[in-house]
Amino acid sequence: MALMPGEFDFIDWISAQHKPSALVRVPQGDDLAVLNWPNEDLLLVGVDQVLDGVHFDSNIHPPRAIGRKVMNRNLSDCAAMACLPAAAVTTAALPRGVGMEYAKELYLGLRDAADPFGCEIVGGDTASWEGKLVLTVTILGRSAGIAPITRSGARPGDAIYVTGPLGGSILGRHMTFEPRIALARQLAATGRVSAMIDLSDGLSRDLGHICRQSEVGAIVDAASIPIHADAITLSRDGESPVDHAMNDGEDHELLLTGEVEGLGLPVIRVGEVTADAEMRLVRDGRVETLQPRGWEHRI
Amino acid sequence: MALMPGEFDFIDWISAQHKPSALVRVPQGDDLAVLNWPNEDLLLVGVDQVLDGVHFDSNIHPPRAIGRKVMNRNLSDCAAMACLPAAAVTTAALPRGVGMEYAKELYLGLRDAADPFGCEIVGGDTASWEGKLVLTVTILGRSAGIAPITRSGARPGDAIYVTGPLGGSILGRHMTFEPRIALARQLAATGRVSAMIDLSDGLSRDLGHICRQSEVGAIVDAASIPIHADAITLSRDGESPVDHAMNDGEDHELLLTGEVEGLGLPVIRVGEVTADAEMRLVRDGRVETLQPRGWEHRI
Repeated sequence: MALMPGEFDFIDWISAQHKPSALVRVPQGDDLAVLNWPNEDLLLVGVDQVLDGVHFDSNIHPPRAIGRKVMNRNLSDCAAMACLPAAAVTTAALPRGVGMEYAKELYLGLRDAADPFGCEIVGGDTASWEGKLVLTVTILGRSAGIAPITRSGARPGDAIYVTGPLGGSILGRHMTFEPRIALARQLAATGRVSAMIDLSDGLSRDLGHICRQSEVGAIVDAASIPIHADAITLSRDGESPVDHAMNDGEDHELLLTGEVEGLGLPVIRVGEVTADAEMRLVRDGRVETLQPRGWEHRI
Repeated sequence: MALMPGEFDFIDWISAQHKPSALVRVPQGDDLAVLNWPNEDLLLVGVDQVLDGVHFDSNIHPPRAIGRKVMNRNLSDCAAMACLPAAAVTTAALPRGVGMEYAKELYLGLRDAADPFGCEIVGGDTASWEGKLVLTVTILGRSAGIAPITRSGARPGDAIYVTGPLGGSILGRHMTFEPRIALARQLAATGRVSAMIDLSDGLSRDLGHICRQSEVGAIVDAASIPIHADAITLSRDGESPVDHAMNDGEDHELLLTGEVEGLGLPVIRVGEVTADAEMRLVRDGRVETLQPRGWEHRI
């Protein structure tokens, strides 16, 4: 009897993709992977998920692009902390009957994103169900000689920077962004970055995270915010390009504080950290309160 | 305007549950957690998910029990490798409108399972969607002075053991099992365990994993397999208690090979490793082929 392919066929196929490395002592295929963690390295760890209908649309986005996105979300968290991605584990909840080729494409998308950074996929859990596609990636990063940059180090007087144009990522860039790991490491290596985060929830909300965790405020100059062409396209809905740039989210550029101008690094100054706990926006010569309006899941 | 509670309220609540520790340098609430990994320790890592309608039924099982199960599945993987759980990260895809109390109960279930082992939850990702509940846990384990036990060390002549009665876990034990971490560490510390796995897919399939990865075979004595009362209850469906014990899965007892009798450890000998690659079952004086029949997800 010819069975449908099963998870163990898929695991066999994945195992065949694995190459020996100094990091991995026991690769995927056992109960847990065993890693030789470098003694000198801090271990950074986090997890992100993508859900069909929320973070992607399986009717539109091919599986390879979906795999790339969830890995890149995690790699972007490594950028935010200025660490190097080392290893990842992953789960897939596959809609029943989706087929082996679809599962392989998801995996290859993960690899497309991870391989350029030497990040190895060392384990996973695959299941099928009646629900829609859910992918998760857990990333392990290593400090590799650079102290991690947290959200809590911003100090009054620090400048506020972003690393690229913002807004309108829903038009497509939310699936195709590139994690800013190399730039983050360059920035952190200057010793002049006080706090950093990747722009996933939107500038207004992510700056709010830095302000709250650093116990500071911020004043942002609307005219200095780099606007992506997609934000202008989207502004036909009546919301201004600046508001799209402030609030859309999933740009995955870096937002950082410190003093890093004049070093030849591609950063755009958008404001300054303040001592009081308020966030303000200067727009058209007027000062308004800056409300966190980016994405938040309701529970 | 009173908003529905959001993921950041939930994250605040989770952060308030965290206590400082020597392991965690930067706790959850940043892009990634930062851990001081003990120099002498190998790092073990793996991930497991639970899906509504597959691994639990949200109409029947309370959220606290669901949280406990997914953490215990991962802790049981630590037992299978004889490592100590150190830290975990988690994702929750919450059905829209499930409410903050439900989310908290899921988290408290994770903690119920993790806390007795000193395993810290150091990060996570919460989202809401139109789909059903999906929880994942990624576990980080440390070798802590005992070499990890893999699936690939079984040698011809080794005895095969299990650590408790099997079968019929679907009647309830699949939600309430206890990971055998202490026993696994005791067993591994003898230096006389050659391979080990936890019984999640069922004895027939999990023994198949050991045999395949060790390139050996096995002969199992049906009469020696410890039968759980639940397997006898379930046998009213026409399948024998032994077949339930062999194939039901989610027992989360240990299956191991080696020579560990006479040491006062609670193991039950069920067979022997053989040099040829076949798996056989001796039942009622006859030898039959032992087919892996436990759980496998179809893709």
